[in-house]
Amino acid sequence: MVTYSVPLKEMNFLLNDVLDVGEHYGRLGYDLGPDDIMPIMQEIAKFAEKEVHSISRSGDVEGVHFEDGKVTLPKGWVESYKKFAEAGWNSIEGPTEYGGQHLPATISVPMSETLASANACWGMLPGLTTAAVETLVAHGSDKLKNQYLPNLISGQWFGTMCLTEAHAGTDLGMIRTKATPIDEETYSISGEKIFITGGDHDAVENIIHLVLARLPGAPEGTAGISLFVVPKININSDQSLAEPNKVTCSSIEHKMGIKASPTCVLNFDGSKGYLVGQANKGMTYMFTMMNTARIGTGIQGLGIANAAYQGALEYSRDRIQMRSLTGIKAKDKPADPIIVHPDVRKMLLTQKALIEGSRALSYYGASLVDLSRHSKNKDEVAQCETLLALLTPVIKGFVTEVGNECTSHALQCFGGHGYIGEHGIEQLARDARITTLYEGTTGIQALDMLGRKVLMTQGQSLKSFTYIIHKFCEAHKEDDVLGTMVKALSAKNKEWGDLTMKIGMNAMANKDAVGGAAVDYLMYSGYVSLGYFWLKMAAAAKVKIDAGEDLKFAKAKLETARFYFDRILPRTLSLASTLVADIGSLMNLEEDSFGLDV
Amino acid sequence: MVTYSVPLKEMNFLLNDVLDVGEHYGRLGYDLGPDDIMPIMQEIAKFAEKEVHSISRSGDVEGVHFEDGKVTLPKGWVESYKKFAEAGWNSIEGPTEYGGQHLPATISVPMSETLASANACWGMLPGLTTAAVETLVAHGSDKLKNQYLPNLISGQWFGTMCLTEAHAGTDLGMIRTKATPIDEETYSISGEKIFITGGDHDAVENIIHLVLARLPGAPEGTAGISLFVVPKININSDQSLAEPNKVTCSSIEHKMGIKASPTCVLNFDGSKGYLVGQANKGMTYMFTMMNTARIGTGIQGLGIANAAYQGALEYSRDRIQMRSLTGIKAKDKPADPIIVHPDVRKMLLTQKALIEGSRALSYYGASLVDLSRHSKNKDEVAQCETLLALLTPVIKGFVTEVGNECTSHALQCFGGHGYIGEHGIEQLARDARITTLYEGTTGIQALDMLGRKVLMTQGQSLKSFTYIIHKFCEAHKEDDVLGTMVKALSAKNKEWGDLTMKIGMNAMANKDAVGGAAVDYLMYSGYVSLGYFWLKMAAAAKVKIDAGEDLKFAKAKLETARFYFDRILPRTLSLASTLVADIGSLMNLEEDSFGLDV
Repeated sequence: MVTYSVPLKEMNFLLNDVLDVGEHYGRLGYDLGPDDIMPIMQEIAKFAEKEVHSISRSGDVEGVHFEDGKVTLPKGWVESYKKFAEAGWNSIEGPTEYGGQHLPATISVPMSETLASANACWGMLPGLTTAAVETLVAHGSDKLKNQYLPNLISGQWFGTMCLTEAHAGTDLGMIRTKATPIDEETYSISGEKIFITGGDHDAVENIIHLVLARLPGAPEGTAGISLFVVPKININSDQSLAEPNKVTCSSIEHKMGIKASPTCVLNFDGSKGYLVGQANKGMTYMFTMMNTARIGTGIQGLGIANAAYQGALEYSRDRIQMRSLTGIKAKDKPADPIIVHPDVRKMLLTQKALIEGSRALSYYGASLVDLSRHSKNKDEVAQCETLLALLTPVIKGFVTEVGNECTSHALQCFGGHGYIGEHGIEQLARDARITTLYEGTTGIQALDMLGRKVLMTQGQSLKSFTYIIHKFCEAHKEDDVLGTMVKALSAKNKEWGDLTMKIGMNAMANKDAVGGAAVDYLMYSGYVSLGYFWLKMAAAAKVKIDAGEDLKFAKAKLETARFYFDRILPRTLSLASTLVADIGSLMNLEEDSFGLDV
Repeated sequence: MVTYSVPLKEMNFLLNDVLDVGEHYGRLGYDLGPDDIMPIMQEIAKFAEKEVHSISRSGDVEGVHFEDGKVTLPKGWVESYKKFAEAGWNSIEGPTEYGGQHLPATISVPMSETLASANACWGMLPGLTTAAVETLVAHGSDKLKNQYLPNLISGQWFGTMCLTEAHAGTDLGMIRTKATPIDEETYSISGEKIFITGGDHDAVENIIHLVLARLPGAPEGTAGISLFVVPKININSDQSLAEPNKVTCSSIEHKMGIKASPTCVLNFDGSKGYLVGQANKGMTYMFTMMNTARIGTGIQGLGIANAAYQGALEYSRDRIQMRSLTGIKAKDKPADPIIVHPDVRKMLLTQKALIEGSRALSYYGASLVDLSRHSKNKDEVAQCETLLALLTPVIKGFVTEVGNECTSHALQCFGGHGYIGEHGIEQLARDARITTLYEGTTGIQALDMLGRKVLMTQGQSLKSFTYIIHKFCEAHKEDDVLGTMVKALSAKNKEWGDLTMKIGMNAMANKDAVGGAAVDYLMYSGYVSLGYFWLKMAAAAKVKIDAGEDLKFAKAKLETARFYFDRILPRTLSLASTLVADIGSLMNLEEDSFGLDV
C-alpha cells in the first residue's frame, strides 16, 4: 500500500508565507497566532498517519455491512472515530458556546485534506457533521441549537444531508417528501431519500438528519421546500436519548469506490421532524450546508490526488526499467529508476503542479471563509463573500476534475501494477471518481459559476478577482525571475475578461451558449487561477531564496511554477477556442440522431 | 444494466461507403464480396447481444475463482465460449489449411469491437488466441503449426502471451526465465511470469503458452531472448492430450476491473517447451503478436467506450431533471430529459465524435492489415506496412486514452447514479482503465510512434500519411459543404509536419525532448488523424445526401463532423504548444525535490 505523510512544510509555507493567514487571526477573534498553526497540524498529522491511514485499504476490501436494517462500519473504524472525537478533533470549528474550539477554516481545511489523503471515506465522517453544524448555527432556533449542537460538535452524534430522491437529484424542486404539522414545533416527515452518506452506521449513538421536505400547500418547485431536523433517535429535553424515531435504512448502495462509506436509502415514515428557520426557505438554508460541503468535496479531491501522487513518486523512484535516453543514470543497477524518463517526470510534475496549485487555491478559499465570517469590516466581508461565491465552484468543480486527472496519472506511473489492488492506487482512482459527481456535478458547478456568479453580476464578481490578479501582475511585472511568467498570466487575466464578454454576447443571442461554454469556462478559470497562485508561491519562494532560507524547497517551487507555465497553462489555448465555439454544432443535432444506427 | 446493440449500420457505412473494403476482397484472395460483410456481422451481433452481453455484469460481480491451483470462469462463461467456438467464430481469421476461414481483418476487427462492447472480459478470450495463432503462422515450423494451429484456430485450445516478469514489464531485456536444451527440439523452461491473461481457466481443454525465455549463453538484453511454445498439457503427435506439463498457476490478481478475466502468475518449473523459429529472435517474433494485441487493445478501448455511450445516451433521454434554458421541451413531463441541456449534449457529442472517429481510424488500420498481408503489389504492401507501423500506436495509445475519456463522460451523464453498480456504467469505467496500461502503456506507444516510427525514418512514415491527407484536402478544398473544415484540416496537416521537424531539432540538442514530447505528439497525431477520418465520413455522407439516401444518418454525420472541428480538433492548439515546450522545466528539477516536504 502507498504510504502517506502529511505535507506539513508545504502547509506551513502556504498558510504563513503565501497567504499570511496568521496575521488575520488576532483581528478575527481567534485565540491563536501564526506559530500555533503547525503544532496543531503536527498532532492531526500523527493521528491521520497512525490511526486513519492504516485502515483505508482494509476498509475498501471489507466494505460496509448491512444487516437487519443496520449499517456497521469496517473493522477498526468505530474505535478510531471515537478516539478522534475524544481527542477533541471533531469540535475544532464549532462555536465555543456549544463546546466547540472556534478554530479557523484555515486550520480545518488542511485537517480535512489530511484526513482525505489518509483515508477518503473516513474523512467524510467528521466532514458531514461539520456541514450540519454550520447550517444549524446559521439558521436554527436557539432551542434547536441547544438541543443538537453540543453532541454534534463533540462528535457523539453525526449529521447528514438528506436532499436527493430517486427522481430528484440536481432538480431538487421535484422532491416529494412531505412534512405535515403535528403541533406548533413538530412535524411528521414521510418520504424516501437516496444517496445519504452516513445515513446509518454504528460509530455514534445518534444520527441527526437534515431533511428537505414540502409542507402542505407549499409552492411548487424550490420555493416550496423546507428544512427539518429529524433525529434517528428522539431526544429528551436534557438531550438524553428517548425512543427511536421512524427512520429506517432500507438498503445501501454498491459503489465503484468509497466502499467504506455507507450510502443509504432512508425511509421516513411519519418520523418526527423539527422545522429549521422559516417554512419554504429550505433551499436557501441548504446552500449554507452545500457550500461547505462543496469546498469539502474539492478538498477531498485534492487530498486523494495528493495521496496518489506520493504513491506514484515513491514507486517511480524505486521501480527500475530501461535506461535514460541521455545516458545511464543508476550505474549500479541493471536499469534506471523510471523517474529519469521524461514522460514519467511529466506525469509526476503535472500532478505536483496541479496539486500544489489547487492546494493554494483551496487554502485561499479557506482564508476567505474566515474573513467573511468574522471580519469586523463590512466592505471586507462583502468582498470576501463575493470572491468565495465565485471560487467555491472552482474549488469544487475544477479541483476535483484535475484531482481525478492526477490520480489517473499516478496510476499510470505504476503501469500494470497500478491496476491491481496491492499498491492501493486503484482504490484512490475509484474513490476519486465520486468527487466530480456528488454535491453537484462539474456541470452544475460550472453553471453556478458562469451563470449565477459571473453573468448574473454582469461580470462584477469576476472583476473582483481579476483585479487582484492584475494588481499582483503590476507589482511583479519587472521581476527578473518571475517577469516572463507574470506577463503570460497578465495576458490570460485580460483574456479571461474578454472571453467572459464574448460568452455574455453569445448568451444574449442564445441562452444555451451559457451551458455550452460552462465547463470549458470553469476549467479555463481554474487554470488561470492556478497560474496566479503559482506566481504567488513563486514570489514567496523568491523571498526565501533572497533570504538564503529553505533553498531546496524554494527552488523546487520556482521550477514547478515554470513547469506549470510551460506545460499546464497552455491548456487555456484550446479552452479559449472551444468555450466560444459555434453553438449550432452543439445544439442542432436532433435528439433521435444521436444513436449510432439512426 | 445498460443495453447494447451492435451499430451495424455504422459498420456498413464505414466498411462499404467510407473505406470501400469490399473492393479489395477479390484481389486479396478472400472468398467474399461487399455484400457478404453485413450478413456475417448480423450473426455475430446476435450472438454478442444474446450470449455474451447478458453475462457481463454477473461476471464482474462474481469474478474469477482460484482454488487448488485451478482457475474457473464465472457462471455461464464456459458454455458461451464453447458455443462460440462450435459456431465457428473463433476460426474466422485463421488460414484454411489449418481449419480457418481466412476472413479479413476488416471482418474480425468489427467482430472484436462487438465482443468488447458486449463484454470486455469475454472478448479477450478469442482475442488472445488469435494473437498466438498469428505468431505461429508467421514464425513457427511446419511441425509446430501442424501440432498447435488446428486446435487453437478451432477454439478447442487457448493461447497466451507470457512476457512480463515481476521485475521486467516494459523492460523485457531484463527477463530471467531460462530455457535449457533437452534434445534437439525440446527445452526445459523455468521461471515465473506475471500478468498472464487467461494463464489458466476452464473454458478449454488445453492452454498453449508462448513464453519469452533465455537460452544458456544468450546475449544480454533483448538480443538474447527466444520464444517458446509451452503447452499446459503435453500433446502426443496426433494432438491428443498426454500428461500435464510442469506449468502451475500460483495466484491470480485482484484488479480494479476486468474482474472476469483471469490474470495469472504462472510458474514454469522445468516445463517442456519448443523453440519458435530461431534462437534469440524472440523479441522480433513477439512483436507480431504484440502488434495484433495492440490493435486489439485499441479496439477494446473503443468497444467499451461505445457500450458506455449507448448507456449514457439512453439514460440522458430517459432521465428528466430541470428545464431547458431556452424554454420547456417536454410539456407533458415535470422536467425535460437531460439531453436538452447543452453540457449533457456536449458530453454525448464528445463521445459520439471520438468513438465514431476512432472507429474509422481503427477499421482503416484493419484494411491496412488486409492489404499488407495479401496484396500482390509489392509497393502497396510496403506502403501499407509503413502506414500500419505508424498508426498502430495511435490505434492503441490514442484510442484507449480517448476511450477512457468517453467512458468517464458517459458515467458523468448518469450523475451519482453512474457511481453505483446498478447501471453497469462504473464497471465499464473500471474495465476501460486497463486499456492504457497493458500491451504497452500510452507512454510506450508514444515513444514507439515518435521515436521509432517517425524520427527514425526521418519523418518518411509520417509523410506517407500526411500525403494521403494532403491529397484528400486538395480534392475537397472547394467543396461547398466541407470546404471550411477541409481548410482547417489542411492547416493542421501542415502543422503536424512542422512540429515534427521542431521536435527533431530539439531532440538533436537533447534526446529527452523526444520523451518529453511523445505523449502530446501521440495525442496531437490522433486528433489530426480523426479530423481526416471525420472528413472522409462527411464526404461519404454527402454522397448519400446528394443521392437522397439515408438522409437522417448522413446529416448526423455532417453535424457530428462540424462538432468535431468546433470542439475537439482545437485540442491541438494546446498540444502544439506543450509538445515543443522548453525541456528544462521538465528535466531540471532534482529527483529529491519532487517530494512535497523537501
